[in-house]
Amino acid sequence: MDGLSAKMRIAAALASAAARDGVLLQGWVRTVRRAKEVTFIALNDGSCLDGIQVVIEPSLANFAELGRLGTGACIEARGDLVPSPASGQQWELRAREVRVLGEADGDYPLQKKRHTLEYLRSIAHLRPRSNTFGAVFRLRSALSFAVHRFFQERGFLCVHTPIITANDCEGAGEMFRVTTLDPRRPPLEKGDVLWKDDFFGEKTGLTVSGQLEGELFAMAFSDIYTFGPTFRAENSHTSRHASEFWMIEPEMAFADLAADCRLAEDFLRFLVRYALEHCGADLAFFNERVEPGLIAKLETLAEATFETLSYGEAVAALKRSGHPFEFPLEWGLDLQSEHERYLTETIIGGPVFVTDYPEGIKAFYMRLNDDGRTVAAMDLLVPRVGEIIGGSQREERMPVLLERMKGKGVSEASLGWYLDTRRWGSCPHAGFGLGFERFLMYVTGMENIRDVIPFPRTPGNARF
Amino acid sequence: MDGLSAKMRIAAALASAAARDGVLLQGWVRTVRRAKEVTFIALNDGSCLDGIQVVIEPSLANFAELGRLGTGACIEARGDLVPSPASGQQWELRAREVRVLGEADGDYPLQKKRHTLEYLRSIAHLRPRSNTFGAVFRLRSALSFAVHRFFQERGFLCVHTPIITANDCEGAGEMFRVTTLDPRRPPLEKGDVLWKDDFFGEKTGLTVSGQLEGELFAMAFSDIYTFGPTFRAENSHTSRHASEFWMIEPEMAFADLAADCRLAEDFLRFLVRYALEHCGADLAFFNERVEPGLIAKLETLAEATFETLSYGEAVAALKRSGHPFEFPLEWGLDLQSEHERYLTETIIGGPVFVTDYPEGIKAFYMRLNDDGRTVAAMDLLVPRVGEIIGGSQREERMPVLLERMKGKGVSEASLGWYLDTRRWGSCPHAGFGLGFERFLMYVTGMENIRDVIPFPRTPGNARF
Repeated sequence: MDGLSAKMRIAAALASAAARDGVLLQGWVRTVRRAKEVTFIALNDGSCLDGIQVVIEPSLANFAELGRLGTGACIEARGDLVPSPASGQQWELRAREVRVLGEADGDYPLQKKRHTLEYLRSIAHLRPRSNTFGAVFRLRSALSFAVHRFFQERGFLCVHTPIITANDCEGAGEMFRVTTLDPRRPPLEKGDVLWKDDFFGEKTGLTVSGQLEGELFAMAFSDIYTFGPTFRAENSHTSRHASEFWMIEPEMAFADLAADCRLAEDFLRFLVRYALEHCGADLAFFNERVEPGLIAKLETLAEATFETLSYGEAVAALKRSGHPFEFPLEWGLDLQSEHERYLTETIIGGPVFVTDYPEGIKAFYMRLNDDGRTVAAMDLLVPRVGEIIGGSQREERMPVLLERMKGKGVSEASLGWYLDTRRWGSCPHAGFGLGFERFLMYVTGMENIRDVIPFPRTPGNARF
Repeated sequence: MDGLSAKMRIAAALASAAARDGVLLQGWVRTVRRAKEVTFIALNDGSCLDGIQVVIEPSLANFAELGRLGTGACIEARGDLVPSPASGQQWELRAREVRVLGEADGDYPLQKKRHTLEYLRSIAHLRPRSNTFGAVFRLRSALSFAVHRFFQERGFLCVHTPIITANDCEGAGEMFRVTTLDPRRPPLEKGDVLWKDDFFGEKTGLTVSGQLEGELFAMAFSDIYTFGPTFRAENSHTSRHASEFWMIEPEMAFADLAADCRLAEDFLRFLVRYALEHCGADLAFFNERVEPGLIAKLETLAEATFETLSYGEAVAALKRSGHPFEFPLEWGLDLQSEHERYLTETIIGGPVFVTDYPEGIKAFYMRLNDDGRTVAAMDLLVPRVGEIIGGSQREERMPVLLERMKGKGVSEASLGWYLDTRRWGSCPHAGFGLGFERFLMYVTGMENIRDVIPFPRTPGNARF
């Protein structure tokens, strides 16, 4: 190494304000093109969608070797950043010295051509080097930072709620078991496993939500959020479900359902604007290759007023539409995906909060409304994705909470600590959950959740 | 609600530049003090260590009720922010109206007195309302944001590596099993569990490190980091080990061990300065109550040059010291905690990198040095904590990597995807891991890892 060249990321080189001598670039070869007199290498280092053109002249000692480089090879190139005569790029690197760090032969699975997303999933360890997944994971990174910025700038405390848990938040989602018992010969007593012999002294699993623990912290710090992995052991094989995904769950003390909806709206708008401001080139790629009209959709969302409809109004509007739905539509039944999509895409034509669901179909911790038959819950529906946020005001009144737990068969004994917060210093509070991958699907236009997670886990698949 | 009062967090009220009428504060009662004519309530909402004094005059309709409020009750108070005649506080709230949102009786487990940390652990759902844990979790939140800021501002991509995994990164740490098989009657064939019948079609567990997957991403995006939960199923009952903890793992392509040490040093310095700048009041509390001299220690670290010593030099220096150690000290043996502490606390008197460990005691992926018997590994040791960061340059040369895997009994077949990155476009790269809780112990002076995690998981304990 000469030590004199200035190491730069390719994004910075391409954004350079002026020509510059003595630059060191490092990255992976996308294409090699041999012209009459020189060889052009398109080099990418993941810092941006575009690669930079490296011009190799015959005067270089290893000119012949470089002309034979395969897609995927890793090189470092020293030279001068000069104006490029080629169209579509302001700068190129005129190489003075190129070192090959790692070769790539013709077996490299990511040759320069169109690959199906299915194929790319099978090489999830290499797909980040493709244009599509480069863009997906840059967006994922930028937006995960945006999540923290949004909450931290508003004084919300970040809480790391536990992953391994002995309780099942909603009594609903199937849980993975976490254990160190001998899998062949579990300790049994009268046919039942002796969980007291397991690592934690009781039966434990992977969390389905950090909400209950989040509530405990909200009742000390007022405004908190979690951002961490959550799990579902459901054997579902749809394009919208993964067994492991990241969720964002804010919780606010002294807040009601209306404040909860305002926070959700502000949050979503902030994230979308952040993407538009910081990820322009990647969004343009998705707009062109994945979902035509994507950027217009995002710009609309960033300015839109979110509508609000009660569940009752939503059911009535769906019935009035006369649209033939597959699933039944009656007050008291849960809305299905087809209903939600029709509501947001056709009836409203934009994001809409549906609020005040029948208490029978919602979780025990949601606050009972004065009508005695609905709860202060909300789902935010957006076009193409359907439900993207679900939240509620929580039941802060001990007698009502106990009554609803009894009605839903939730054991009081196992949630004594949760009830303690209603026993001492209870207060109105509310929160919601946003599935980070669902949101990324919305922002990128990618239609399969497996394509917005680095290494997706689904039934039958825990590779890499 | 009158809707006219401006809702404020107590931190903002205490920092107000001027007196202000019509303020709404909400929080939890720390103490109630009845003076001759008025009642004083110390109110805290978690936004800062200090509470604000709320002055209740007899003219309030519920004056008598408020005088009987217990510690832990939740109230909202409307009134005027006025200069406080009391010492040590610039502002107090002269209440015009106070509503009790949630009472707290004498059974409230967090009465105003000194509690042991052991006792507070048993009420982990309420301890965030105490001064000590308010400060701990504010620091934890601020520093987790600082982690993201450090890396994002330097162009590192945030990667969410998988939690559920079929591989065991280091062949070392004990793993928790993740399963949905019937625990009472697991499917067996010749006495072995049929893992192909399990949820993911193979045996899976909770990750002990995101490094291997992080390397895959570094070889597409150059600089990446992970920040997520990791797990150890070891039955250890020390104050420094938890079964679930958060780890930060950056990985840089085109970097050697020296660059890795520089990054670690910059990172640690950044975090410490961030705490000093943003968490002054909480640090002052720790300095006074938990570790005298803490702030001076942090200020020293923020300015210190980190020493570097090779493992060989470290062993020689420890031997020369003549200090009687419990564990043997020989070239080729791992350094024990007592050696590390003596090195950083007594011999160096500050942070020190120990580098180039014998290859026999280090993981297969660490790069073999030219001497053939050491690897390009580093541990950063700091006073009071010992090892706080461990990292290495990774072995990028396929034949050497294969040789070391064979020597360590690591199966080639199970890591084919990892080897692929050495097959195509390999490059020098390096990274490290920082245990977030270890670092928080260093910054707060708290001596038990259970006291810097919201809801710690340890053998026999998965409560809350």
